[in-house]
Amino acid sequence: MKEISKLMNYRSDVRVIDATLRDGGLVNNFFFTEKFIRDLYLANIKAGVDYMEFGYKADREMFDESKFGPCKFCDDEFIQSIVGENNTDLKIAVMADVGRCDYKNDIHDRSESPVDLIRVATYLHQIPTAVDMIEDAKSKGYEVSCNIMAISNGQESDVKVALDILGQSPVDVFYIVDSFGSLYPEQIARIADIYLDFAAKYNKKVGIHAHNNQQLAFANTIEAVGDGVDWLDATYASMGRGAGNCAMELLLGFLKNPKYNVYPVIRFIEEHMNKLREEGTVWGYDVQYLLTGLFNQHPRTAIQFTQENRKDYSEFYKEIIAQD
Amino acid sequence: MKEISKLMNYRSDVRVIDATLRDGGLVNNFFFTEKFIRDLYLANIKAGVDYMEFGYKADREMFDESKFGPCKFCDDEFIQSIVGENNTDLKIAVMADVGRCDYKNDIHDRSESPVDLIRVATYLHQIPTAVDMIEDAKSKGYEVSCNIMAISNGQESDVKVALDILGQSPVDVFYIVDSFGSLYPEQIARIADIYLDFAAKYNKKVGIHAHNNQQLAFANTIEAVGDGVDWLDATYASMGRGAGNCAMELLLGFLKNPKYNVYPVIRFIEEHMNKLREEGTVWGYDVQYLLTGLFNQHPRTAIQFTQENRKDYSEFYKEIIAQD
Repeated sequence: MKEISKLMNYRSDVRVIDATLRDGGLVNNFFFTEKFIRDLYLANIKAGVDYMEFGYKADREMFDESKFGPCKFCDDEFIQSIVGENNTDLKIAVMADVGRCDYKNDIHDRSESPVDLIRVATYLHQIPTAVDMIEDAKSKGYEVSCNIMAISNGQESDVKVALDILGQSPVDVFYIVDSFGSLYPEQIARIADIYLDFAAKYNKKVGIHAHNNQQLAFANTIEAVGDGVDWLDATYASMGRGAGNCAMELLLGFLKNPKYNVYPVIRFIEEHMNKLREEGTVWGYDVQYLLTGLFNQHPRTAIQFTQENRKDYSEFYKEIIAQD
Repeated sequence: MKEISKLMNYRSDVRVIDATLRDGGLVNNFFFTEKFIRDLYLANIKAGVDYMEFGYKADREMFDESKFGPCKFCDDEFIQSIVGENNTDLKIAVMADVGRCDYKNDIHDRSESPVDLIRVATYLHQIPTAVDMIEDAKSKGYEVSCNIMAISNGQESDVKVALDILGQSPVDVFYIVDSFGSLYPEQIARIADIYLDFAAKYNKKVGIHAHNNQQLAFANTIEAVGDGVDWLDATYASMGRGAGNCAMELLLGFLKNPKYNVYPVIRFIEEHMNKLREEGTVWGYDVQYLLTGLFNQHPRTAIQFTQENRKDYSEFYKEIIAQD
């Protein structure tokens, strides 16, 4: 059982990362209004959030610019148009996917960029390229984290090898990522143990990015922070792919560090998030996402089910069962 | 950390209680159609659910019969009209609130009733009456459980005295009840420890009834079952007062006992629960419930906010802060 004295207090090493534009952008192809982005930036500053992720550094060779909003590409000039010199305590992050980012050309020197943190996202079978991206970003002056995706489908021994390789790279933070929303808090506790062991060995930090397929994104995040995980991803009103993420309003309500303030988050949700839903943007827990989470599958079939406005959960259940 | 071998297996002592009609009835004044109730009964049988709670034994002197559906009063004849002789493995439960139930007259001998389990619900300051109700129900031949409500607002020392008194009564099960949805899994672990100590001393079982104000109803329930709590309340699609309860579809997906089957639950939700929502019945997580949970308050102000179709969360936040 966790020590009650530690639960009542806080660790100053904890960092909160707002991933609304990035994970939420997967729901609306990153078509956020400029006002939305600007207000979110201001809300994060007032709420004491540590990092704001603006989106992806996606390769224009692979993605048609006309089909996505600017947060898909996160040009330095675009971010600057929102944050100016960013003379605030809020740091700026972008995500760079292995295989979908022309990092050598599209990520410029930190001295020329408003970005502070490059978040490299990789599958287990892409670790060497992830390491190359980490070294590239580090040499350009950035803080760097690395998300190992879909670990609930990977072998623990492979995860350990990956952490050992990443440990020897200049990355600052290892991220536990529950891509399919299939993990229970008990499993998060075990996984956090593994990540924290490698982090201690190589002097790294550990983070968590959770999904809400089984209504456990917040529960898994607070399990992790109780276990010693420091970097916590959240999104406003849980906005994110499929069932969404850990809700920022829940997380800031839970954290005890007086620098965090939930009220600006509540205000932003009131002004912007309900409107997004009314305009037809759909995300959040529903039975189809529970089912892909339960069966430890990628949510793509559930996302399609949602997009087709289907509600025949029992047929979907049979389709999923038949897939194996 | 919990033993992985225990997590992979199951305890045959675990019991699942469907509280949809009872806690869900608080949302629609118990106006369920007969088809809804009958289909729910059949779904519970197919799903392997252990107990189905039909509603309250409310005192007609206190509650106007014309303003509620039959599940508010749970006459034996009404339940019999659904379950007949109930020659199934599914047992029938009803709730009797201290101070709102004419138990001496309205609860008949078990030999004349389709009910198996009387669930006494009490606040800490009503324990002696709860004991009288427990003794009354036991003497009439029922299984009896006791919910101590609103413990997140009570003193631990008072809870211990209550458990010691109840331990000496003929009650079968003590229930942990997070009435305000304010407890975190870490707190549930500590509370479960206390309840399980008294249960061991007096040879009782322990149950849990959770609310979803902070999206933790399922997480708190699986925390509890991992700690040794056996009786687990859930409702279809989380239907219940305010933010609702632990979702049956999540719980049965998690439990490993092969007697449980999530598919009939999915089917029932598809046929009935989305329709209820479309007809205007409102329940489930929203920011106003998060806030009453976070501030450890009764959800009545959030329920009123919901009923008034308000969405000005930030004003509600200020109202709550001003209350203290």
